[in-house]
Amino acid sequence: MNFLEEKILTAGVIKDGNILKVDSFLNHQIDIDIIRQMAYEIKRRFRGVSVDKVLTIEASGIAIATLLGDLYDVPVVFAKKSETANSTDDKYVSSAYSFTHKRLNNVFVSRPYLSAGERVLIVDDFLADGEAVHALIDVVGQAGGEVAGIAIAIEKGQQKGGAMLRAEGYRLESLAIIESMDWENQTIRFRSQPERHLADTGIKPL
Amino acid sequence: MNFLEEKILTAGVIKDGNILKVDSFLNHQIDIDIIRQMAYEIKRRFRGVSVDKVLTIEASGIAIATLLGDLYDVPVVFAKKSETANSTDDKYVSSAYSFTHKRLNNVFVSRPYLSAGERVLIVDDFLADGEAVHALIDVVGQAGGEVAGIAIAIEKGQQKGGAMLRAEGYRLESLAIIESMDWENQTIRFRSQPERHLADTGIKPL
Repeated sequence: MNFLEEKILTAGVIKDGNILKVDSFLNHQIDIDIIRQMAYEIKRRFRGVSVDKVLTIEASGIAIATLLGDLYDVPVVFAKKSETANSTDDKYVSSAYSFTHKRLNNVFVSRPYLSAGERVLIVDDFLADGEAVHALIDVVGQAGGEVAGIAIAIEKGQQKGGAMLRAEGYRLESLAIIESMDWENQTIRFRSQPERHLADTGIKPL
Repeated sequence: MNFLEEKILTAGVIKDGNILKVDSFLNHQIDIDIIRQMAYEIKRRFRGVSVDKVLTIEASGIAIATLLGDLYDVPVVFAKKSETANSTDDKYVSSAYSFTHKRLNNVFVSRPYLSAGERVLIVDDFLADGEAVHALIDVVGQAGGEVAGIAIAIEKGQQKGGAMLRAEGYRLESLAIIESMDWENQTIRFRSQPERHLADTGIKPL
């Protein structure tokens, strides 16, 4: 079991509706030790892969992307979300359905910040149906760039995003892959791991 | 002239309506060298001040806050914005008017992530009328915490936020303070600096 799977067991909470809350260390409060380890582990897994830019989407991906940009010493770009952004000459625009907010978001990056030939590492905190990642792949493609790889903190292995991206031939590295979760018993099974109990159902501070 | 003032002169763009665009290095694309220098400079200015937590607001403040959390080795919390969040038992809620989006946003932090007695360093990319910073001060106060200081990348010195916060007795450190900007001539004057021309009116990649 790796550091992130251990952290999910001790600090994660399973909510009704197949929702894993990791607010206490990943997407509201940020446990800097965990995020730092994530960045090092992602860089280790992509050893030998050349990266010109790190691309994420606001807001929860920014912390990991920033530490990765620091490690690789390359610029970080965060795509913006908007309900209203129109396709214009100065932006690459794609769209992604948000299951959290139950709406279609436009995802955009201003043209000067993605270039033809750039090797882009896409990073995000969660991968479920792959909507956000596919939108990011789309904007990289529009710019004539190349996806160097996709790095995810937590992949929901029961949802289709991971399988699709692997079938499409992308190099996808997810630090923790959830195979199944049980809200009533507060148990979780990570891919290639036995089922485990979460430590507690209460949200705890660090 | 410091590194950030220099970067604004070479990569910033003044738009009609007193808007300084720094998308190319601060709030869309992130120039990792600049953000790293900001974090070190903020820590230097607050030397001797003890900090238990770094608090910012999504999304543009997260990158600087993450590198500061890394330097201080403390957790980072990013307050969330929502048009709809209600005050509930599990959140500290305040509100801030967004001049960018022309609406009142609720700003909230889940209760477990701010605690009584904690010394909190508030960080943000811009300070104008101080709406967001005052909302963050409010949630720290609701939690019984203490504001250790306020660190800002770019303060718009013509707007009231900086003067208010200093009058209220907060220790405020802004890395660049804009005294005046002229859209037509693309000139800018930083506090304690002579007026300068921006390098170019086109948005340039790094």
